[in-house]
Amino acid sequence: MAELGTLVLLRHGQSTWNAENLFTGWVDVPLSDQGEDEAKRGGQLLAEAGLLPDVVHTSLLRRAISTANIALDAADRHWIDVRRNWRLNERHYGALQGKNKKEIADEFGDEQFMLWRRSYDTPPPEIERGSKFSQDADARYQDIDGELPLTECLKDVVARLLPYWDNSIVPDLRAGKDVLVAAHGNSLRALVKHLDGISEDDIAGLNIPTGIPLRYDLDADLKPTNPGGTYLDPETAEKAAAAVANQGR
Amino acid sequence: MAELGTLVLLRHGQSTWNAENLFTGWVDVPLSDQGEDEAKRGGQLLAEAGLLPDVVHTSLLRRAISTANIALDAADRHWIDVRRNWRLNERHYGALQGKNKKEIADEFGDEQFMLWRRSYDTPPPEIERGSKFSQDADARYQDIDGELPLTECLKDVVARLLPYWDNSIVPDLRAGKDVLVAAHGNSLRALVKHLDGISEDDIAGLNIPTGIPLRYDLDADLKPTNPGGTYLDPETAEKAAAAVANQGR
Repeated sequence: MAELGTLVLLRHGQSTWNAENLFTGWVDVPLSDQGEDEAKRGGQLLAEAGLLPDVVHTSLLRRAISTANIALDAADRHWIDVRRNWRLNERHYGALQGKNKKEIADEFGDEQFMLWRRSYDTPPPEIERGSKFSQDADARYQDIDGELPLTECLKDVVARLLPYWDNSIVPDLRAGKDVLVAAHGNSLRALVKHLDGISEDDIAGLNIPTGIPLRYDLDADLKPTNPGGTYLDPETAEKAAAAVANQGR
Repeated sequence: MAELGTLVLLRHGQSTWNAENLFTGWVDVPLSDQGEDEAKRGGQLLAEAGLLPDVVHTSLLRRAISTANIALDAADRHWIDVRRNWRLNERHYGALQGKNKKEIADEFGDEQFMLWRRSYDTPPPEIERGSKFSQDADARYQDIDGELPLTECLKDVVARLLPYWDNSIVPDLRAGKDVLVAAHGNSLRALVKHLDGISEDDIAGLNIPTGIPLRYDLDADLKPTNPGGTYLDPETAEKAAAAVANQGR
């Protein structure tokens, strides 16, 4: 049996709404200038590591798509095969989409705020159909009708992500292809939870830094031979993780 | 039978080597700033016309890929399916790749120069394998070995393009999808020759302006119901055609 290809995860860089501290979810905002720089640096890290993807999988959201385009261009792999699917999208943030994070924390209190942000199975309230930041009318989701979420918790993301992992990403890996997955904080946390067998409690504490490629080497049973993965720039990744851990202290 | 999708052709905008007057062919140079602006304008024209592609086909060359990325982002269709193939590449310019056009004209004379540029079946001399501007070692062409061209005339481009048209683009059109093809001066001339049934003599006089989407409506036999296609910005397209016709006068 042929050896599996290498899996590389890349979380998109800063978006304009990250910069403005708004809940984004499925709202299709662009990268900020800083986010574009992060994407380019991510591609340079791939090239320096000689880790050159044969195929890229992205969500249907601009900030992941642009990250992939910019990173692959920087790595001289702009010409590889492309696959896109809504199942790689960020978690749908329901009625919180478009709202300011600080205002939500002030209105609902820190405990509720953290529950919506980090609990495994408590989704925010559903978004109202037809409201400003809902995706009912969005052409890209018209063929998933029955499944269009109105809100999601991380558990929901795991449930809708795994069929795509099994049916689209794994076949590429089994074909010996090196696969880049350019996606989002929560869709990548969902995938890492699955890969590393992280518990529902422990996944709350796991954050993936933006713009730093995370390599997984998988055995024939799709178990990582490097549990937790390997960041291509471990020093910066560690600093980013420490910064997140210190938030709010 | 379902109606065929609409076909839209888009020639990439100015590249850095267009700006420097060098023969480019398969050398993978980026768009210039002007070329990026042209791509964005092309996407805006698509959006204004309500002509929103469901799938994009590109060559394996950065200037076509970036044109597609930028145009689709401007049209809010960055999330559609992507297909890429070397058969949409620009004509391989053989030993002329990387050479200055004026120097070649001076060295070989205008007649030979125009023969290489515009004759249907006279390719330039072959590029030397392993030389600076050859593609022997380029990863993206490793699975086409037997077919890697060392030079091409337009007739060669037609021959290698048509299998991709038949086997990849036509099935998308027959599935009712609106298809964007982002490619090059000569690969698009080859396709237009086929669609409009243009003779080997007459194709020499046909030029496709950069950055202006060209729409074809096809009947069930894949014949254009609008022969010659329809430019989304006919005024600018006419000016560009006149400018080319007047070159060298």
